[in-house]
Amino acid sequence: MLEKLFGRSKPADPPDSVLTGERLRAVEGSASAEMAAQYLCAPTALMQFTMDEALFVVSYMAPRKIPMGTTFIREGDKRDTGFMLLVLDGEVTVENVVVSRTSPVTVTVLGPGSLIGEMGLLDGEPRSASCTASTDVRCATLTRDALEKLIDENPQIGAKLMMAVSLRIAERLRDSADKLKMYAQLTQAMQQEIDRLMPT
Amino acid sequence: MLEKLFGRSKPADPPDSVLTGERLRAVEGSASAEMAAQYLCAPTALMQFTMDEALFVVSYMAPRKIPMGTTFIREGDKRDTGFMLLVLDGEVTVENVVVSRTSPVTVTVLGPGSLIGEMGLLDGEPRSASCTASTDVRCATLTRDALEKLIDENPQIGAKLMMAVSLRIAERLRDSADKLKMYAQLTQAMQQEIDRLMPT
Repeated sequence: MLEKLFGRSKPADPPDSVLTGERLRAVEGSASAEMAAQYLCAPTALMQFTMDEALFVVSYMAPRKIPMGTTFIREGDKRDTGFMLLVLDGEVTVENVVVSRTSPVTVTVLGPGSLIGEMGLLDGEPRSASCTASTDVRCATLTRDALEKLIDENPQIGAKLMMAVSLRIAERLRDSADKLKMYAQLTQAMQQEIDRLMPT
Repeated sequence: MLEKLFGRSKPADPPDSVLTGERLRAVEGSASAEMAAQYLCAPTALMQFTMDEALFVVSYMAPRKIPMGTTFIREGDKRDTGFMLLVLDGEVTVENVVVSRTSPVTVTVLGPGSLIGEMGLLDGEPRSASCTASTDVRCATLTRDALEKLIDENPQIGAKLMMAVSLRIAERLRDSADKLKMYAQLTQAMQQEIDRLMPT
């Protein structure tokens, strides 16, 4: 069954020169495909992927190696939004440019199992942050075309995948909401400090 | 066909006393069901719902009337997370309790077409904010059981629904990221002000 899954036609490549353009299994053997599949079986998912289902999803993904130091997603980029990426190995730094600062603010560092770029893939809006490989990174990409094809060809698994993606986005939104609460407290404390220091 | 869709068994009720426990069409006629369906056909969706598909989703939802002043989702609530809600009419105030403040911080005010509670529905984590009806509110609820049943019975439409829900969450995450950037600038400006005022 897996042979059949992995034998399907290659999904359209993301428009990026560092994409190897070959399938995970073909390039790196089934171990890589299984690793990707395991990362897709997130324990928090409402509807759990079976290993076979996760491998089915992986069969729609293409492998990509990103050399250390490469910025492969740029904040504000409107053109290159048609893919998301599952990190298999290595670390990615996510950064935001803040107008008043000279250097970008590191939002987070993501490791293996992280999903990157899923928002842009879904809504096609400009990328919300820049992503740079802080080590050599090995990952699996899913293009919008491949996602649509997957949902068309196996809607059950497609629905589960979308559920898993929603969960990842929800997780990030919760983190973000916690940070906003922290900032609300911080700015209040700073305002009190300013009021105290202000000459009366 | 719609008669058949609306004739299906009622989804499990959210455990809340203000739920009317009757189906949209039965209570308020097809106009309400069609309004709910129109709100589900978000123009930003990657895979657009047809009206029939949206009405199919609506057939899994239950109507609910929430009197003005009712707090129907409480921040931190871990038990009552099994439903999300589509606002059809009225306004909902979303608030966060911030430790150092005496009154909660209003995060946003949501009107017709807004989806509420979808994160808790997906991940079962405690509610991230409190929601209070600032007018009488008419809405349609979807329970976790009904969502699973829908995906099971029609995975194509289920996948599209999950895509639409992901998009809504992504939209909120983008808003939240913008606010975080604003806060990063604000705290920097405040820090400069404190440095300036600080006696040397």
